[in-house]
Amino acid sequence: MDNFEKSNLIDEAKRIIFKASEQIKSHMQRPYEINTKQDRKDLVTEIDESTEKFIIEKIRSSFPDHKIMAEEGTGDDVTSLDGTVWIIDPIDGTMNFIHQKRFFAISIGVYHNGEGIVGLIYDVMDDTLYEGVKGEGAYKNGKKLPELTKEKELKDTLIGINSFWSVPNRRLNEEKIHQLIRDVRGTRSYGSAALEFAYIAEGIIDAYITMRLSPWDIAAGLIIINEVGGKATRVNGEPLDLLKENSVLAANEVVHSRYIHYIEEK
Amino acid sequence: MDNFEKSNLIDEAKRIIFKASEQIKSHMQRPYEINTKQDRKDLVTEIDESTEKFIIEKIRSSFPDHKIMAEEGTGDDVTSLDGTVWIIDPIDGTMNFIHQKRFFAISIGVYHNGEGIVGLIYDVMDDTLYEGVKGEGAYKNGKKLPELTKEKELKDTLIGINSFWSVPNRRLNEEKIHQLIRDVRGTRSYGSAALEFAYIAEGIIDAYITMRLSPWDIAAGLIIINEVGGKATRVNGEPLDLLKENSVLAANEVVHSRYIHYIEEK
Repeated sequence: MDNFEKSNLIDEAKRIIFKASEQIKSHMQRPYEINTKQDRKDLVTEIDESTEKFIIEKIRSSFPDHKIMAEEGTGDDVTSLDGTVWIIDPIDGTMNFIHQKRFFAISIGVYHNGEGIVGLIYDVMDDTLYEGVKGEGAYKNGKKLPELTKEKELKDTLIGINSFWSVPNRRLNEEKIHQLIRDVRGTRSYGSAALEFAYIAEGIIDAYITMRLSPWDIAAGLIIINEVGGKATRVNGEPLDLLKENSVLAANEVVHSRYIHYIEEK
Repeated sequence: MDNFEKSNLIDEAKRIIFKASEQIKSHMQRPYEINTKQDRKDLVTEIDESTEKFIIEKIRSSFPDHKIMAEEGTGDDVTSLDGTVWIIDPIDGTMNFIHQKRFFAISIGVYHNGEGIVGLIYDVMDDTLYEGVKGEGAYKNGKKLPELTKEKELKDTLIGINSFWSVPNRRLNEEKIHQLIRDVRGTRSYGSAALEFAYIAEGIIDAYITMRLSPWDIAAGLIIINEVGGKATRVNGEPLDLLKENSVLAANEVVHSRYIHYIEEK
């Protein structure tokens, strides 16, 4: 992919995410008779699916030979990262979207032969775009984000982790997580994987730990985090695989290895 | 307190909170040489204290006979709620203020002979004011918040609870909290008690559980929550005492009693 193609792709990806965001907002404002929980669920599903369709149509019309992996299943059946692959989540943080009408994001990551080109995370209601461009840095609303600090001790860190992982569960040893929670400064939980990645890039949390994310939850955030010197892997330190589900430890690189000691998969 | 006095008090409280917010923002933008952690801590302490002093001076100049209870200790030594008492927290969510430069709030609650008159929670960086006026409702940026839904089942609720309370601790039985986390829709943790109260009033979380809050963490939120039909008590159901530390269960009233069953103090 040459520089001209790359620049065009990045511009188009941004145009698409802004337009998709407008679509979501206008859908949310549309009067809608909600009589039952099923109605509400249908509304959400409808907005989620129609946003995905909108994004996919735009991509197909500009880049007919690109492949698309998407949460709601209306993309392609992607089995390899050869060529150019868009990995999209029309609404990351669906529960927040339903219950809170805020703290959700559109996530778009574009990969070329397996290498991240551009990652975009758009906090729709906060009107904030997080952007990572391979080799060129990460940005919040156009303003370059500084490299993450190299001076950080575990005891001074804030982690994004859902309480669920400190309850006995079948994926990890909760007692080691208890020790981690005791040893850090504090924990937060925002309910959107994409936003938790963005917050790490911004340096407002230092890590995010979770045990099961799909490629579209990760694709954009991974690119953004790499551009500020952060590190995202499976919780055992192995590389993330964008063709399957992953556990995730995303963190300031300085403390990434320290966190790993607290995580024991079952 | 007659209606004229009350209206004047509410207007003045809002003027004070807006001005204090501007002060905090301008302090944050001021160039400041931070060489060490101690420097950073000093800066935060300085902003916290200077904001408190600013608020207290304003109150004293307008209402010289009112009493003031304040976090940083520059108020009065308040031992009863007789008369008119302002209960203020210049920066609620200090850790967020330090690490995130967002998700913190100024909290001001005014009580007259023990009865809440007005509660104000101002999310400084989001420029959002939550306001509760006894008997007149609660507002977000001037827009009336609806009564909280009367149709809510525990399994459909989102709780604000810090992971810390699901780790073995000396204040409550963590196993019952584990069961609660399993039984609800999900958990969130934002790191500001005042904002978690505001979010309950807004209906974007359904409950907030914590084991130790000071009067200034609660004073405004309690008034706001009451105005939308929410309920805030100690975790055993007893009334909150604004002269001492409290455990807190703030929630949609419909599910408040259900939550209590999951909380067993040690």
